[in-house]
Amino acid sequence: MTSVELLPSWNDGPAKQAVLDFVASTTTPGPSFVEVADRIAAFDNDGTLWSERPLAPQFDFVFRRWGEEVKADPSLAGVQPYKALLEKDMAFFAGVGTQDPATIDTLLKAFSRSWAGSTPAEFDAEVRVWLETVKQPKFDVPYIELVYKPMLELIEYLKAHEFRVFVCSGGGRDFMRTFAEETWGIYKENVIGTAADYRYTDGRIVRAEAGLGGLDIGPGKPEHIFAHAGRLPVLAGGNADVDIELLESATFSLIIDHDDDDREFAYTSGAEASIARAKELGWTVVSVKKDWNTVYGQIERS
Amino acid sequence: MTSVELLPSWNDGPAKQAVLDFVASTTTPGPSFVEVADRIAAFDNDGTLWSERPLAPQFDFVFRRWGEEVKADPSLAGVQPYKALLEKDMAFFAGVGTQDPATIDTLLKAFSRSWAGSTPAEFDAEVRVWLETVKQPKFDVPYIELVYKPMLELIEYLKAHEFRVFVCSGGGRDFMRTFAEETWGIYKENVIGTAADYRYTDGRIVRAEAGLGGLDIGPGKPEHIFAHAGRLPVLAGGNADVDIELLESATFSLIIDHDDDDREFAYTSGAEASIARAKELGWTVVSVKKDWNTVYGQIERS
Repeated sequence: MTSVELLPSWNDGPAKQAVLDFVASTTTPGPSFVEVADRIAAFDNDGTLWSERPLAPQFDFVFRRWGEEVKADPSLAGVQPYKALLEKDMAFFAGVGTQDPATIDTLLKAFSRSWAGSTPAEFDAEVRVWLETVKQPKFDVPYIELVYKPMLELIEYLKAHEFRVFVCSGGGRDFMRTFAEETWGIYKENVIGTAADYRYTDGRIVRAEAGLGGLDIGPGKPEHIFAHAGRLPVLAGGNADVDIELLESATFSLIIDHDDDDREFAYTSGAEASIARAKELGWTVVSVKKDWNTVYGQIERS
Repeated sequence: MTSVELLPSWNDGPAKQAVLDFVASTTTPGPSFVEVADRIAAFDNDGTLWSERPLAPQFDFVFRRWGEEVKADPSLAGVQPYKALLEKDMAFFAGVGTQDPATIDTLLKAFSRSWAGSTPAEFDAEVRVWLETVKQPKFDVPYIELVYKPMLELIEYLKAHEFRVFVCSGGGRDFMRTFAEETWGIYKENVIGTAADYRYTDGRIVRAEAGLGGLDIGPGKPEHIFAHAGRLPVLAGGNADVDIELLESATFSLIIDHDDDDREFAYTSGAEASIARAKELGWTVVSVKKDWNTVYGQIERS
């Protein structure tokens, strides 16, 4: 095994040991052995693979676009979600985390409308400009540099043990696919998220005016991964209440505890129920402070 | 290379040569080189990977179920699609091939209704019983034995050249996933088809009362594969008018010409437009009679 496979950014301790033990038990002959075909792992993205504070990075991307739309059409200022954006009413957007149907519907419609008619190449180019030019407020670096190195090591470790690793996030599928291969080492087809619908017309793929399949949060996560992969995950990772159903659907679940305000952020807001559920069900809790000797960084892949 | 990689069931000739040349040109340095990440291949199933005459095998599976439903509730006899089934009105079902929206809507609703509330395990078990017990009328063997050996060789050949191979069929996604891994050597997550929607409730995945995303035919094929994989295919294979858009969306396209009534079937019905388009656009036409020395059979996989 290479050093990457031994999870060098993870401190020795119960979390790392639980992961190593689980992977060993499922990939060597014995009562817990899992057939290669069934080795599916699924990770949430925001707060699980990269920092989600002060807000999930995609909101930064989307808010800039919505800001331009309001400038072009001031009548939008009285309409949600533009109103909440202008009034910096972050409680409105927090409705996503509580899975409030009205908020979700409003946001989904606005997301779809904003990019309807665009081609994938146009959308990708817009995401790339954002990735390269916009900086995260606390650390003053591009958001993409705030990916958790220990989780990238975990992904490679799982792949080395013939797990097929999926990302299953409330974030936009096509947004994540723009950087998935380079950043996570995961092919686009293994990225599941809240999805745009597409039309194929005049030999081109173009975004439709509506999304397809609902927001990929809560029960939507196991629904989406089952629809996409035909299986529920053996191993799942998350960090928030919207991940509970995904974590419950797996055999082994880990949950990131954001407890390091110096190196990252310290918060439990939006994760209260998942932390309680982790205790109840014996999920592996990963403390950013105690379990990770390095928080951010890219890894080398063979 | 093993003998499988050299397509032993394919006769030497322009079709085999075109496939070998295309794969060589895209996987060795040069102007046509395709990055590994972009190497997506997509095949239709009915008539492309297995025989679809006298009717697509899944109809046999579905008709048996619908027959039981009419027996249990005779009032269905006057309602489509049950009426067409009882009257052996195959022209009604051919409406799928012509992409008639009313027929498609009727069929999708009936498919969804028939298995709503069932779990994947229940559905899989039902498909397995059908696979093992029902025989195809012309050859008197289970339908699953009527898979084209040359196409299985082609799938392995592409995989050996780091193509990721998807099936993109009008047939039911979950129906195909039941046998995809054993029969095609393709993981469930690479099977795209007409899709059931699911709900995750009480810790279980259960079929919803409606489908998700429309029938996977015509423009739906490139739309579905783009949604699923984030890319259009580099290589595509099909055999019918409902495959035209998929074939147009690829760089290299092949189309199966069913011209061997002794060893398989001879027909052009439902493929008239695709044969014309193949000539126009220079697609590779594969003659079952001339290009395949063996039609049916499974292969050994390493």
